[in-house]
Amino acid sequence: MNTGAIYHRPESEFGYLYTKETMHIRLQVAKNDVAKVELLAGDPYLLDTERWFEQPYEMDFKLQTELFDYYNIEISAKYKRLSYMFKLTGFDGSIVLYTDQGIFPAEETYYLMPNNYFRMPYFHEIDRFKAPDWVKQTVWYQIFPERFANGDQSNDPEGVKDWNPNEVPDRQDFYGGDLQGVIDHLDHLQDLGINGIYFCPIFKANSNHKYDTEDYLHIDPSFGDKEIFKKLVNECHSRGIKVMLDAVFNHMGDTSPQWQDVLKNGKNSRYADWFQINEFPVSYTETNDFEFSNDATYDTFAFTPHMPKLNTANPEVQDFLLNIAEYWIKEFDIDAWRLDVANEVDHHFWKRFRRRCDRLKKDFYILGEIWHSSQSWLQGDEFTAVMNYSYTDAIIGYFVHKNITLDKMVSVINSQLMKYRRQTNQMMFNILDSHDTPRILTVAQDDKDIVKQTMAFTYIQPGVPCLYYGDEYSVTGSMDPDCRRCMPWGIEDQDQDMYAFVKNLIKIRRDNDMELSESDLIWELVDQENGVIELQRGNLKAFFNAGAKAVEFNKDKNILLSNLVNENIVEPKGFVIELK
Amino acid sequence: MNTGAIYHRPESEFGYLYTKETMHIRLQVAKNDVAKVELLAGDPYLLDTERWFEQPYEMDFKLQTELFDYYNIEISAKYKRLSYMFKLTGFDGSIVLYTDQGIFPAEETYYLMPNNYFRMPYFHEIDRFKAPDWVKQTVWYQIFPERFANGDQSNDPEGVKDWNPNEVPDRQDFYGGDLQGVIDHLDHLQDLGINGIYFCPIFKANSNHKYDTEDYLHIDPSFGDKEIFKKLVNECHSRGIKVMLDAVFNHMGDTSPQWQDVLKNGKNSRYADWFQINEFPVSYTETNDFEFSNDATYDTFAFTPHMPKLNTANPEVQDFLLNIAEYWIKEFDIDAWRLDVANEVDHHFWKRFRRRCDRLKKDFYILGEIWHSSQSWLQGDEFTAVMNYSYTDAIIGYFVHKNITLDKMVSVINSQLMKYRRQTNQMMFNILDSHDTPRILTVAQDDKDIVKQTMAFTYIQPGVPCLYYGDEYSVTGSMDPDCRRCMPWGIEDQDQDMYAFVKNLIKIRRDNDMELSESDLIWELVDQENGVIELQRGNLKAFFNAGAKAVEFNKDKNILLSNLVNENIVEPKGFVIELK
Repeated sequence: MNTGAIYHRPESEFGYLYTKETMHIRLQVAKNDVAKVELLAGDPYLLDTERWFEQPYEMDFKLQTELFDYYNIEISAKYKRLSYMFKLTGFDGSIVLYTDQGIFPAEETYYLMPNNYFRMPYFHEIDRFKAPDWVKQTVWYQIFPERFANGDQSNDPEGVKDWNPNEVPDRQDFYGGDLQGVIDHLDHLQDLGINGIYFCPIFKANSNHKYDTEDYLHIDPSFGDKEIFKKLVNECHSRGIKVMLDAVFNHMGDTSPQWQDVLKNGKNSRYADWFQINEFPVSYTETNDFEFSNDATYDTFAFTPHMPKLNTANPEVQDFLLNIAEYWIKEFDIDAWRLDVANEVDHHFWKRFRRRCDRLKKDFYILGEIWHSSQSWLQGDEFTAVMNYSYTDAIIGYFVHKNITLDKMVSVINSQLMKYRRQTNQMMFNILDSHDTPRILTVAQDDKDIVKQTMAFTYIQPGVPCLYYGDEYSVTGSMDPDCRRCMPWGIEDQDQDMYAFVKNLIKIRRDNDMELSESDLIWELVDQENGVIELQRGNLKAFFNAGAKAVEFNKDKNILLSNLVNENIVEPKGFVIELK
Repeated sequence: MNTGAIYHRPESEFGYLYTKETMHIRLQVAKNDVAKVELLAGDPYLLDTERWFEQPYEMDFKLQTELFDYYNIEISAKYKRLSYMFKLTGFDGSIVLYTDQGIFPAEETYYLMPNNYFRMPYFHEIDRFKAPDWVKQTVWYQIFPERFANGDQSNDPEGVKDWNPNEVPDRQDFYGGDLQGVIDHLDHLQDLGINGIYFCPIFKANSNHKYDTEDYLHIDPSFGDKEIFKKLVNECHSRGIKVMLDAVFNHMGDTSPQWQDVLKNGKNSRYADWFQINEFPVSYTETNDFEFSNDATYDTFAFTPHMPKLNTANPEVQDFLLNIAEYWIKEFDIDAWRLDVANEVDHHFWKRFRRRCDRLKKDFYILGEIWHSSQSWLQGDEFTAVMNYSYTDAIIGYFVHKNITLDKMVSVINSQLMKYRRQTNQMMFNILDSHDTPRILTVAQDDKDIVKQTMAFTYIQPGVPCLYYGDEYSVTGSMDPDCRRCMPWGIEDQDQDMYAFVKNLIKIRRDNDMELSESDLIWELVDQENGVIELQRGNLKAFFNAGAKAVEFNKDKNILLSNLVNENIVEPKGFVIELK
């Protein structure tokens, strides 16, 4: 047995409360190495008297990656306390105990040592990672407000350009999109079937993307005002649509009064300690790139001198930002915050942020922008989820770029699922594109069948899907600013076939929301050679042909959605989603 | 290469800030499997332009366990941000990359993918685990107050027995020990050289051990009063001795007014939600064992019906307990809290507890009673340390019980060190015995040479040693209540040779405190066959003979302390500590 590959970590994604009274315990072992995994578990204070290690529980094989097999068990405890260790039987016939103190032979001496057991010392509901049901029932829609719709020309910024969905925007262009434009098109969104909107920043800022906040307490005047925003939230809520705003708390815009005061008063500014300043006076050398200088005397987002980094260890800054978070929840009843560059802000601050949000609104959703492994933000006391780039990257890598194998995709997906608690996976924000990436259709080199296949696959994954505005009409665009084109409202620019497809897909996702959130992901068939995948999610079954040859499938079920299917033949790039 | 055994976890004990500007990165690989480990690291936003992956850093081999080798590197980052991955060269000649996305071939494609890198997104001092210097300079002394010294007979409890160090105490006996007794013997403690006292509970409670608190805001009347406690703290502080109290926040005593109110008023009690009550009225069936009933209708500590578990998720209970924690810090200037059954109380509460203590006193020490792996309490926002039973168990297992091999002891020690950050290891509370275990001399079957060897070995380990009262006089005693005998104050009951030995050992520890805290533990020689260990801690070198034959050592250094050494021969059970 490859004992070096055995891994468990108590009180983490490997051992956690799933519900108030049940915990999940996971174990990693080397791939195809172990024939049987048993859990020896019971009350820590009854080890000697009950000898519960004599009645092992068999663990279930769950998922496989390139390197590992993962086992799981769901278990309760009468007295809400659990001691546990693992007994593994290898395919080579060897039997070992894996304990909190390492590997031991499976002998009574080691069963009887109380300190050999891993522990869930007590089932504390207050420490449990909680997954609000409404998020499981949500399909998000991301709006980049400057480009969604211009509903009020009276607030257009200076130099506004004509609305033109076929024009590639320049970095500093303005097209006049605003909040009234969103209100005007809520019927569109409701018809499409989405029930959550994620708004890129809407607070006063200089740029068209508004990630350089100047004033967090005002709606950008070219987007509208608080009255219109209140109306927007109310309209959304009355249609059952949740609202998520974008909080840029890692840095501020350099046009903010706080930074301007630092520029003016240097180290005597009352905001001198609001930022991460290494040397006064603050300065930087301009380069040809507006967003790059590598000699700023202060810390910035990336190397952008116009986005000085906030000092979130300063209690005054914390209070300032928390009051902002509170203001928009309390006064406007928003349902979620998306946190920009969330990984570069300290944990101490995010824990305060979480406590504040939880106090203000039940089941508030907090979504962090993190592109890498995010365990330390997802323990239950910071974020509810992160933007699931690692997950969808693998999907795009296989279905679209074709630069990873099917086995690799499955391995990455499984390994991502094993990075987080089951209830965390249910909250993850699954996106195929955004304002920070090329459009999925462009990535797919305008192949709409591939986009449909990729979307269908993504929408039946654990986690919560989010559609980037315009994808429903086959909008294209490469890396930003191209991916931020004006939304096509003229019927001649709209792909009605894609619209119908996306609408159907959203309907399927919503009709089966709890099932698609909570059920196991079961890989029925992964045929690397032919590019064929068959998978199960609760009552749904799906079949994907990502290979080069048409393939047969067993067509005796209730087909919910398909593409490139004739009778019982699925063409390349085709798929079927069925009800079992 | 055994790729399944490779392990790293960002933002954990495998990747953390050590000082404000340096971080430590650790990697686990299979034992004797990897010839070279390199770190490819640099600023996340300069990956393309600087191509820093072309200048790898070589990582240092640190420690080995039965299964694994551990590598480490200390590294800074100009812009306080770091992307990193590992490049491993196996003894089999294979080369792989270990990344945030798994294992890849060492090819440029994979270097250039920004999301392949593990991340320390920003060096946040506020999130760093901090190790106060004073703790590194402390040798603790644990006092079980009822048995240390009776300084005031006027407060003796009813039925007090005569002070008799040679008597085995019964579970319910009282001998009259009190705080005045401690004050009376501070000269003794100062002469011995300790500079921290850990007091088992001193608050009003029914039992002799006081772990069944009745009133957290009063000194137990048989121990004294607040005035005498204030005097004790002042006397300690004026002698440079720190004071740690024991907080029993997992449960209360059933004689507390709160529980009495529940007994009286049932679910209408205003304290009904202060406890974990599963059914009203609260009840349990008595058994022959005062401390056991398995049908209590409320959760308890272990199965003790007299210790109902507190509901620390109730904000009222939280405030109640936090105010107690605050009271003794603010009014009496204590330096540390030891937390009883700390693992069974929720993390949410301990985080509030930590924040409160930090606000009240700089460098406050929080010591949790946890017997198993404790990573989730030691991330920097809960405890400073835990009682290091797993570490000392291995030492006792080898040196005293002789039931594990030398290699196993070294493996367990190394694996314990790899469970926590380096600065956490510096804070760990190393004990060979306590009020909860048999006395070390009894475990050693009265072999004082073995005790001396074991103590010497323990006192030069990373972490902070604590002496259990009376061990300096060779007090014996098996499992409690026997390990809680009266302290021998009559010269005829005192082992002066052991006293001199312990005093010397404490002096060596304190003379070299920062060195013994902060330096590497280097195993120069681990000779399993002959039971010989040679190790280095900074300027100190030590040689232990735990085998059956006398062995030679290289005697040309400044010997600080030794036992069973003649010229350059170390007898079995002997040891030498030298200054290099």
